[in-house]
Amino acid sequence: MTAAAARLFEQHRDLLARATAACASREYFSPFPETPDRYPDSAAALARGLDAFRAQLGRPFELQQPGEFGRLGAEVSPYTGEPLGIDYPRADVDVLFGAARAAVPRWTDTGPEARIGVCLEIVQAWFAELPALVHAVMHTAGQSPAMSYAGSGTNALDRGIEAIVYAHQAMSAVRPQALWERRFGSATIRLQKRYRLVPRGVAVCFTCATFPTWNAYPALLASLATGNAVIVKPHPTGILPMAVSVRAARRVLAAAGFDPNLVTLAVDSPAEPLGKRLVEHPLTAIVDFTGSARFGAWVERHAHPALCYTETSGVNTVLLESVHDLEAVARSLATTMQLFSAQMCTSPQNIYLPRGGIDVGGRRASVDEVCAALATAFHAVTAEPRRAASILATIQSPGTLDLIGAMRDAVRQRGAIVVDSGPYAHPEYPAARTATPLLLRVGTAARELYREERFGPIGFVIETDDADQALGTATDDVRAAGGITAFAYSTRDDYLAAAESAYATAGAQLTCNLTGAMPLNFAASYSDYHVTGLNPAGNATLTDAAFVAARFRIAQSRRPVA
Amino acid sequence: MTAAAARLFEQHRDLLARATAACASREYFSPFPETPDRYPDSAAALARGLDAFRAQLGRPFELQQPGEFGRLGAEVSPYTGEPLGIDYPRADVDVLFGAARAAVPRWTDTGPEARIGVCLEIVQAWFAELPALVHAVMHTAGQSPAMSYAGSGTNALDRGIEAIVYAHQAMSAVRPQALWERRFGSATIRLQKRYRLVPRGVAVCFTCATFPTWNAYPALLASLATGNAVIVKPHPTGILPMAVSVRAARRVLAAAGFDPNLVTLAVDSPAEPLGKRLVEHPLTAIVDFTGSARFGAWVERHAHPALCYTETSGVNTVLLESVHDLEAVARSLATTMQLFSAQMCTSPQNIYLPRGGIDVGGRRASVDEVCAALATAFHAVTAEPRRAASILATIQSPGTLDLIGAMRDAVRQRGAIVVDSGPYAHPEYPAARTATPLLLRVGTAARELYREERFGPIGFVIETDDADQALGTATDDVRAAGGITAFAYSTRDDYLAAAESAYATAGAQLTCNLTGAMPLNFAASYSDYHVTGLNPAGNATLTDAAFVAARFRIAQSRRPVA
Repeated sequence: MTAAAARLFEQHRDLLARATAACASREYFSPFPETPDRYPDSAAALARGLDAFRAQLGRPFELQQPGEFGRLGAEVSPYTGEPLGIDYPRADVDVLFGAARAAVPRWTDTGPEARIGVCLEIVQAWFAELPALVHAVMHTAGQSPAMSYAGSGTNALDRGIEAIVYAHQAMSAVRPQALWERRFGSATIRLQKRYRLVPRGVAVCFTCATFPTWNAYPALLASLATGNAVIVKPHPTGILPMAVSVRAARRVLAAAGFDPNLVTLAVDSPAEPLGKRLVEHPLTAIVDFTGSARFGAWVERHAHPALCYTETSGVNTVLLESVHDLEAVARSLATTMQLFSAQMCTSPQNIYLPRGGIDVGGRRASVDEVCAALATAFHAVTAEPRRAASILATIQSPGTLDLIGAMRDAVRQRGAIVVDSGPYAHPEYPAARTATPLLLRVGTAARELYREERFGPIGFVIETDDADQALGTATDDVRAAGGITAFAYSTRDDYLAAAESAYATAGAQLTCNLTGAMPLNFAASYSDYHVTGLNPAGNATLTDAAFVAARFRIAQSRRPVA
Repeated sequence: MTAAAARLFEQHRDLLARATAACASREYFSPFPETPDRYPDSAAALARGLDAFRAQLGRPFELQQPGEFGRLGAEVSPYTGEPLGIDYPRADVDVLFGAARAAVPRWTDTGPEARIGVCLEIVQAWFAELPALVHAVMHTAGQSPAMSYAGSGTNALDRGIEAIVYAHQAMSAVRPQALWERRFGSATIRLQKRYRLVPRGVAVCFTCATFPTWNAYPALLASLATGNAVIVKPHPTGILPMAVSVRAARRVLAAAGFDPNLVTLAVDSPAEPLGKRLVEHPLTAIVDFTGSARFGAWVERHAHPALCYTETSGVNTVLLESVHDLEAVARSLATTMQLFSAQMCTSPQNIYLPRGGIDVGGRRASVDEVCAALATAFHAVTAEPRRAASILATIQSPGTLDLIGAMRDAVRQRGAIVVDSGPYAHPEYPAARTATPLLLRVGTAARELYREERFGPIGFVIETDDADQALGTATDDVRAAGGITAFAYSTRDDYLAAAESAYATAGAQLTCNLTGAMPLNFAASYSDYHVTGLNPAGNATLTDAAFVAARFRIAQSRRPVA
């Protein structure tokens, strides 16, 4: 262990202990301020962050990593419509792998505590970059400033710490040595045994366009903490957030006396994608993938013999069986379904309810009435541009606007438009790519429309025979198309109990009867398990023991002792 | 939890605690007597076991499981050359999967402690069957009585308990519920969260011909303890040991109030193999495979989306650099390389040494002298039929005799025969299929002969330029062809340190300078990690956290509370 790494472990020991306790208790925890105004020395820090972002625009991104043979980068801000004008090193993949592999032995030999200390310091370095990162996320993913700070910042950092906690626990469970003694016949054999933690090798971490850091931080840290090197492959439309993160990680590694090539960046372009080559590279030992279901399925099939952890996509379902307060429910659904224009893997998409209507505080509300309440609530979010901007933010990909159009057309013969989509005028960025949501009303015969993730602000109200069919068809949809979150509203305990069982088996994380200030799909680090691995929405959970336990292996040696 | 299951957990709580402590300390532990003479009420128990085995010969094996449509079974004893005359239910695979799946929900709902209690009771039931199982293993795998008792009995049971320990730890780490509270703006959100352990579903467990229980017990118990059902697919030449084990497990499950179809048997024949169908069945959620490298590689590639844990084969390597006592080393190698005629996944195959010879207590011994010492030691094991029988036992497959012939022919142009192979006369079973070992001497140019598992009593002495090349080529062979164990003899600390590092990276478990009463390849439950997963010899370790952690998933539900 280097002296610097030893110091880092000591320095972060208390944080590690508190985070470990939170992972066990599943109670609320975060070492970070929840809002930018509480960031340390807030005003100055935020100003510096903005300056740093602006200074980067139109310039090469400096990242002294090996294998550079040209530059790449064509990011365009969803807020301004303007290119960021930043280029990044185009890296020779074999050189990156070679450098990564060469960095591993010393990183392995330093032992788990040193690696944990360095990883926690990387989290601190990322937190220090957050005021600049907020703008990087805004102008690539298109998130609102608040979400960029929390969802792509502090919450992602917390998920990273969580991964470090699980890595620390898994490694600590392996004793470094033992004295073993047993009789064989009349002789006694005494063996000194030594157990080493051996990393898999080089990990490849794919990051996605709309949430560049949230899955990347825990995946990168889980691999790094267990001794592996990591090559980050960002989505070509959102490179800057992870470029900033990779550079910060490299600085921490170098300062602690390690080879910075433990973390590198492999940038590609839609014209010359690197994804398949990285997955099939003979030195790839681990793949973490966040992105489309289609490429995710390919990755799962072709990663072998590398380990593979995926989060792709699915349909997140809502059951309306009976409610006390329809307006409160509609408000929560409207806010959550419009949050970041539903470009979140946890955004609800499909609302199922009986065609005979639902019970609302003792009286029957028809589907028409429920749809009207939803429409009112949806409009309330979008009516005021400042509120729309803070919730909907922008649309990351131009393709999403096409999809909205296609869905609108597709439903003409099959159902009705409850809420129609159109641009809204962003109060600060007149050129922002925006879209208010499209909410469609269909029957179960239109399954091929809604039994698939329709990425972006597109939702469905689906009429079923009754509430039981709603539950059955919703969980069938999850099993078939994947699902990460689910939401049920019912005043009947038996219905909620049935929903809990059915969704547990289908593998979507269920939230019951929630209204109020919290976005329904908020996933709390240290408390909420994200993705079960039981349906096609992904095979890995953030974070459980299985997410880290196989990233290292155990090699032993034995010698006789007197 | 059923009352019976609750009782079982209490009953085995102390064993669980002691086994858990052993897994952490890696010190010696076993709740079982090491030799048959210390089995409870030994004489009577062993006699009853033999009677039970004899009574089964020539009769249908009774296993009341669903989907039977005919009978199968053509086992032949390697000791007598006679068919066992036992037939087993031929099962409709879809019916087995259906029954298995139907049994899972109640098994899931009963909770982890009940399952742990039942699993530990299954271990006890298997221990109770051991006096009969010894004969079942002898007359299918061809092991000696002592190995059948220990290697396929108590040691396998210990590995089973170990898997239960890790399953218990992994499940206990997930809190069943939590109260989570956080402020959002001016509101406080309080959520009651519930976390459920959800099994993957139906596991398929392939067992191999020569060690039918050793990998099967931990795999079956790891899946079962975490809530899954298990379909056991035994090798068609060795069905009886797992048929006895499956029946005993079914009895325990039924007695504890659970559906016995949580554990079933899928017997096939070489003419109509079931393997691929089981791996690719849409309900298969987990595959545990022990067997050939060729089918193992197919399984690893095709198991997706099922989880897959494999142990296949490899070349286990020995380095001779310098020794104090050549005779002692030769004796240990000769015994270990002949133990069960090297039909163990841990048997050494390749001995590498410098062509200039090795230092023996201060003087140089030539390769000729080392080979002569090995030959003397090999002959000492086989010269006395009773000793040969106790160590070599029999040859499981007739194909192994063909392979010995082929290797003898292949080496004619490429090297020399150090020890030639032939049958030995078994003192009790004159018709036993036996073979003394073939030890061949080659150079590294004959790599295509030795860089592959040559299953059975076939070994190679490989001359290299020097000791460093020996280490380099041996670990290269492990990386290319797989390797589970490795052995190094050197009086130089620096050489052993280099070997420890190189083998840790190549992923073979190293034993240094061991001589004496313990077979060099003995793998101690609770202490020795078996298979690293770092080379082609398998992707799973018996037993670490990664072997169990992904066999269940975590589903959660959240509800607001006042």
